[in-house]
Amino acid sequence: MLERPVITLTTDFGLKDSFVGVVKGVICSINPDVNIVDISHNIAPHNIIEASQVIAMSYKYFPKATIHMAVVDPGVGGQRRPILIAADDYYFIGPDNGLFTPIFESQHYFMKVFHITASYYYLPIKSATFHGRDIFAPIAAWLSKGVDSSKFGEEVDDYVKLDIPKPMVSGGTIEGEVIYIDNFGNAMTNITHDKLTELNMDLSGGNLKVLYKGMEINLLNYYLQDKEAGLSALLNSSGLLELFIYSGSASVSFGIKIGDKVSVTSI
Amino acid sequence: MLERPVITLTTDFGLKDSFVGVVKGVICSINPDVNIVDISHNIAPHNIIEASQVIAMSYKYFPKATIHMAVVDPGVGGQRRPILIAADDYYFIGPDNGLFTPIFESQHYFMKVFHITASYYYLPIKSATFHGRDIFAPIAAWLSKGVDSSKFGEEVDDYVKLDIPKPMVSGGTIEGEVIYIDNFGNAMTNITHDKLTELNMDLSGGNLKVLYKGMEINLLNYYLQDKEAGLSALLNSSGLLELFIYSGSASVSFGIKIGDKVSVTSI
Amino acid sequence: MLERPVITLTTDFGLKDSFVGVVKGVICSINPDVNIVDISHNIAPHNIIEASQVIAMSYKYFPKATIHMAVVDPGVGGQRRPILIAADDYYFIGPDNGLFTPIFESQHYFMKVFHITASYYYLPIKSATFHGRDIFAPIAAWLSKGVDSSKFGEEVDDYVKLDIPKPMVSGGTIEGEVIYIDNFGNAMTNITHDKLTELNMDLSGGNLKVLYKGMEINLLNYYLQDKEAGLSALLNSSGLLELFIYSGSASVSFGIKIGDKVSVTSI
Repeated sequence: MLERPVITLTTDFGLKDSFVGVVKGVICSINPDVNIVDISHNIAPHNIIEASQVIAMSYKYFPKATIHMAVVDPGVGGQRRPILIAADDYYFIGPDNGLFTPIFESQHYFMKVFHITASYYYLPIKSATFHGRDIFAPIAAWLSKGVDSSKFGEEVDDYVKLDIPKPMVSGGTIEGEVIYIDNFGNAMTNITHDKLTELNMDLSGGNLKVLYKGMEINLLNYYLQDKEAGLSALLNSSGLLELFIYSGSASVSFGIKIGDKVSVTSI
Repeated sequence: MLERPVITLTTDFGLKDSFVGVVKGVICSINPDVNIVDISHNIAPHNIIEASQVIAMSYKYFPKATIHMAVVDPGVGGQRRPILIAADDYYFIGPDNGLFTPIFESQHYFMKVFHITASYYYLPIKSATFHGRDIFAPIAAWLSKGVDSSKFGEEVDDYVKLDIPKPMVSGGTIEGEVIYIDNFGNAMTNITHDKLTELNMDLSGGNLKVLYKGMEINLLNYYLQDKEAGLSALLNSSGLLELFIYSGSASVSFGIKIGDKVSVTSI
Repeated sequence: MLERPVITLTTDFGLKDSFVGVVKGVICSINPDVNIVDISHNIAPHNIIEASQVIAMSYKYFPKATIHMAVVDPGVGGQRRPILIAADDYYFIGPDNGLFTPIFESQHYFMKVFHITASYYYLPIKSATFHGRDIFAPIAAWLSKGVDSSKFGEEVDDYVKLDIPKPMVSGGTIEGEVIYIDNFGNAMTNITHDKLTELNMDLSGGNLKVLYKGMEINLLNYYLQDKEAGLSALLNSSGLLELFIYSGSASVSFGIKIGDKVSVTSI
């Protein structure tokens, strides 16, 4: 355990209601020394895929042993299981509804998944509608105090993975799609730097054609590189091909939506 | 005092301007070791009732001795008094405008209310428009450092209580109203689990009729229980009767608003 | 250095994406003991001026040695320099694009500006699009651990200052403009308490005429002072002349926009 353990929170609770505050109150009632860091509470309500992407883009930037708690949980109170994942240097806690698919799909030298059942660690009165407060927060807090993962339940291997769209390669072309639109209106795709490199594509841009809705768009290195270029692409800070326009919202200006196809071809 | 004291914040300051940051700066200038936890800064501007509900739903989940500071303060700079409440295991600091009505209406084994007048503890220059910064933040910070409540001013008992609507019982029927709509569009009413139990109502749902705008609605146990049920009700994690639809916004779909009547009848 | 150093964050990252969480993860990976305080992440995308105003209104309320990190950075990846400012009791870190103009324009007994070039302190792999994560966060974290400012690069004096509009004085009249509209719809101008005092204007209001779009408006002391006064003005908690209406949005009701002219005349 760290001297000052970190618990991160990713939820669809929003920032108006008392939900986030209550979760933090529960955590610091159990472990006053923990450092609670918000990743996002503005995940679209019930959007498990969106939450999984936000977690995937951020978890590695935290100190080793950080506990990533995520709650987007439309099935709360039903049959879906609460789980705890120990994967390499990080822990993940939340509902077993696919939220952690990118973690399950990553390479790890070590990974164990536990079905949380040790109700001894829950809040004394468990509701059927707010397991973020009653189960996940106390489990995260006890874990941060050094309770061993294996104390919270049995190991399982039939955890839920969602079918997250992957880019398809055919001949000299890779076809992917828009998977996330950020605060600036930039549209991230599932086409990765690693995949392009694996296909020996020339990332300097000279011999690549990026296509979106029939438009051929420029591959640049940074946002300001060509202010007049209109819709452009670059490989972003998460290693994803991203569509953008300089100092504006590509999403708004070009009506880009999640699921829109984008392709890259070697020429 | 706790080893690491907690101050929570509930305001209508919003999250764009510098107000919240400034309040935190003042607090940690006085007590660098305090743990500041946001409950909400997105209370609708000047909506004292809404803030009072958010506080009521959250304060008990924090460690003992937590200081709950709340600032929704349209009367700032005028005659309304700044107050400090010591109630059982918690402290509350804010304007005496009714914000703490649910605290005053709860049962306590101990409660004292102080009119804050010890300007010695304020910021040196007090504005007429930002007492969150100039009075409440420094008082909360000094309290968190162990200054005794009684040092901040005289005890009073004529504090302000708002007239918060209560459900009415008549024969076998309890009639309440919608008091809060959350981030998911769920509509919480003022009909409580305790009140239903006190009236010997059968919470398994079999012998209860829940009515909203003439519609008879199902009483379920959790959100996912019946995906096809349409508008439904359950007793939520705060012990309140709540109207919802599965994976959607009941508020938007059925035009539910604060103040709408909801009744429960034993049949 | 403080026992518990403070790093504040002011950005246009928004609160939905993973950007803010990632920055915090990087900081607490390097310095787990730092206290990270959000000032705002809801600066309008790319609005450097707005961010500069939020910083100007808040930085002095933090403990001495606080590190104010600000990232509104449309030129990221291009020629604009990363800078570190040591000014009196505070540090500022961010892009050299004018974000710190109000700091440069303030009186200091001490100020040095460094062009950050010590890539040894950056994250190992630097992207061209997210210097908040790769440069500014690690530099802020290392500074908070006691690394001397001068270790991060050479001192410079040709830093960027934006042309921020200043009020004009002519005869007995000062003409300024609206520079910021807050969460409540109050409209702050660039006419300061200090300037009015310097011009010997009578701030009790009796001999002053405040004009906005031809309307003569009352100068009051606090929001609640005259509920029926309609559009009014006061000197706000930052020492700025501010237009407001009681318990409503002056900006919405009167269509007040950034850049609108406001004048004050001694009569």
